[in-house]
Amino acid sequence: MCLYSRAIAMTEGAPMAAPAMTDMRRPRVVVVGCGFGGLTLIRHLRHAPVDIVLIDRCNHHVFQPLLYQVATAALSPGEIAEPSRSILRRARNVTVMLDEMIGIDRAHREVLLREGAPLAYDYLVLATGVEYDYFGHDEWAEFAPSLKTLQDATEIRRRLLLAFEHAEISTNPDEQRRLLTIVLIGGGPTGVELAGSIAELARFALRRDFRNIDPTKAHIILLEAGPHLLPGFHASLSAYAKSALERLHVDVRLKTPAEAIDETGLVAGGARIDAGIIVWCAGVRARQLSAWLEAPVTPKGTVKVGPDLSVPGAASIFVIGDAAAADTQDGRNLPQVAPVAKQQGDYVARVIGNRLAGKAPPSPFRYRDPGSLAIIGRSAAVVDFGFIRFTGLLGWLVWGFAHIFFLIDFRSRIAVFLEWAWEWLTYARGARLIVGSSRIGRHDSRA
Amino acid sequence: MCLYSRAIAMTEGAPMAAPAMTDMRRPRVVVVGCGFGGLTLIRHLRHAPVDIVLIDRCNHHVFQPLLYQVATAALSPGEIAEPSRSILRRARNVTVMLDEMIGIDRAHREVLLREGAPLAYDYLVLATGVEYDYFGHDEWAEFAPSLKTLQDATEIRRRLLLAFEHAEISTNPDEQRRLLTIVLIGGGPTGVELAGSIAELARFALRRDFRNIDPTKAHIILLEAGPHLLPGFHASLSAYAKSALERLHVDVRLKTPAEAIDETGLVAGGARIDAGIIVWCAGVRARQLSAWLEAPVTPKGTVKVGPDLSVPGAASIFVIGDAAAADTQDGRNLPQVAPVAKQQGDYVARVIGNRLAGKAPPSPFRYRDPGSLAIIGRSAAVVDFGFIRFTGLLGWLVWGFAHIFFLIDFRSRIAVFLEWAWEWLTYARGARLIVGSSRIGRHDSRA
Repeated sequence: MCLYSRAIAMTEGAPMAAPAMTDMRRPRVVVVGCGFGGLTLIRHLRHAPVDIVLIDRCNHHVFQPLLYQVATAALSPGEIAEPSRSILRRARNVTVMLDEMIGIDRAHREVLLREGAPLAYDYLVLATGVEYDYFGHDEWAEFAPSLKTLQDATEIRRRLLLAFEHAEISTNPDEQRRLLTIVLIGGGPTGVELAGSIAELARFALRRDFRNIDPTKAHIILLEAGPHLLPGFHASLSAYAKSALERLHVDVRLKTPAEAIDETGLVAGGARIDAGIIVWCAGVRARQLSAWLEAPVTPKGTVKVGPDLSVPGAASIFVIGDAAAADTQDGRNLPQVAPVAKQQGDYVARVIGNRLAGKAPPSPFRYRDPGSLAIIGRSAAVVDFGFIRFTGLLGWLVWGFAHIFFLIDFRSRIAVFLEWAWEWLTYARGARLIVGSSRIGRHDSRA
Repeated sequence: MCLYSRAIAMTEGAPMAAPAMTDMRRPRVVVVGCGFGGLTLIRHLRHAPVDIVLIDRCNHHVFQPLLYQVATAALSPGEIAEPSRSILRRARNVTVMLDEMIGIDRAHREVLLREGAPLAYDYLVLATGVEYDYFGHDEWAEFAPSLKTLQDATEIRRRLLLAFEHAEISTNPDEQRRLLTIVLIGGGPTGVELAGSIAELARFALRRDFRNIDPTKAHIILLEAGPHLLPGFHASLSAYAKSALERLHVDVRLKTPAEAIDETGLVAGGARIDAGIIVWCAGVRARQLSAWLEAPVTPKGTVKVGPDLSVPGAASIFVIGDAAAADTQDGRNLPQVAPVAKQQGDYVARVIGNRLAGKAPPSPFRYRDPGSLAIIGRSAAVVDFGFIRFTGLLGWLVWGFAHIFFLIDFRSRIAVFLEWAWEWLTYARGARLIVGSSRIGRHDSRA
């Protein structure tokens, strides 16, 4: 048995001190996280005189804006995810490591890893994103999963499809009614998109498939604590989203925060709702970075970065994407969306490139807002470019082209386009698989 | 909340006795299992004057002959599986229930279910298939999973991709060598197909993706206890399969049974092999049917059926497919393959149809062998039609057209064809996703 094994100086034994390393070989940029920010940064540095190590817990990049379509059985996981290794195959200065960061040793300039040896860095870019925040009620996560990873998406898909299956074999009308009550907590883009997509699943794709229940009568409830759906969008678009969802028979309840969640339902706005599935779409936080960095953070755990996106007092550590709390020129917080992460990845690549070349740093980071999009359903979306706004079919077409255009990989673009074209023509859903246990429960999930 | 809920007489309360039922409404055919046999039977009875209830633990039909391609990241689960409900949507006399049979009450002519109430039948068709048999060593299943379900396939895919990932971050050459040693136990079609497909994954698809290991040097071992690969095929095809695998650098070891399996390897033919992944492809059994039926069974648990495929002494209970032990005209056992199951499903549909119509039963079941196929890799397969045999590119083309033709659903056929065309042109693999835990271990699996 012959394994070609290059000397792996980079991960071996005690790391050398950074100055010595820089003398002996090219500086190392360690990037943690393979989302939009980390990937954009690496793409911009792939011909730079640096060695890049990408650390990620997953082996794939997920096109997060379409995750809700996996959760609602419209797309398969493989259609919106691509192995990081494949994406970066041709970037010969990049090493991908499937591992998890468990700490940062700023004194020794090392990243601590769960599996591998400590990894020395010259530049460290943290693009670790955020996770859903249950506002101090982490016990709710079991009953109301959130949607951040492919695993979350297949778990929600499993629960959703199982609820219809269990309702079909139940002989108790109250239990059937409960199982077909679907509650989405949070009226941001994820909640709106899930509500629209689930409504269409029930009203069209599943319509003729059952004998003892009528899936079109499923009760889909969208709860929003604030006074509008899609906070941050123009008021006219929020109003359009609400009426478009109501045309799909979604029960939109504004100013209705969730107060308690358990296995068979929740309390919201003072009233009990028995529910078969609850999905949490309400708020996010960045966890742990604050403790590891000893840097100033917001109450949501995001790291307050300087104008060049570096951590105050650590000029070679950068935070980008959702985990960064960067301010716009006029002092507002930047939204936690893909375009911000990509522009920040691009910017930090330039900061590092300039430093290596001995050039002056670029001017402070400025976000150019390309507009906001959210989809409600077939031929219904909202698009806000600031200077112009679309709704309806035109918004939907803009949304579709934007998403297909930005899908990372050429093959996925074709696959997703074909899948959507098929589903649009037939109202079918192509990925209605329950894989794993047929009991509802977080820890049983497999797919 | 308004749930349209038809009166569900069929699953309610105590079932009526069979004669009364037949008087009052159409006879009920209960089919357990949604494989090739069950589905074929239902398709033939979909216009018959019967009510059909299909019971299955999964919500989908899996095209099992391509399961190995999911396990080796060539196809996505959604491409070889289709929800039973969608397949049977237009069969208005069919009710699908996601449930598990836990017993048969022959005295009351009822099927006992895990979730639902006991279900009365006039005709019962058991198409429950087989599972892998560890020859009395069920503890091996944890270390050497087998390939029967979509979940098995995604679990094997996860282990396979993780082994390469862990080898990449390991700094111990012995551990890297162990992780990249892949052992397949059993030289039947599944073992041969997996070995060929894994060899191509390592040699082509992953070739350029790693920096610290060379995936093309992965050591793939195919163990067969007997003297030939593909027992049951013509000797010339067995020999061709061996040499074709060896051209892909697969280490084929005949007359080498597995003697012990543990977490880090196995003992086979008296020698220790340290291995990163072991897959069990060695033998099958039908479990539990024997105890429920009180009928004669083979040592492998398959039920000895009569010439009309009914259970001796129970003329209205039939066993078809892999779970049935039917003899050929010349006294040999029928193979456990899809064509047998389909022909038996077709046959039992005629038996039931004739009985309902008061006609004479059809002549005893006769299997018409359409030939055997197995694939080794790109442009290499074996095809045995009895009167003529193919290998190489021609065999591979026959194999490809046969499999695409028999895929259940029109859309999947196109999707699989495009995926294969793409992979054939680019050597890429489209479904290389690790979803779930990055630790290797059976109970962590999610996807």
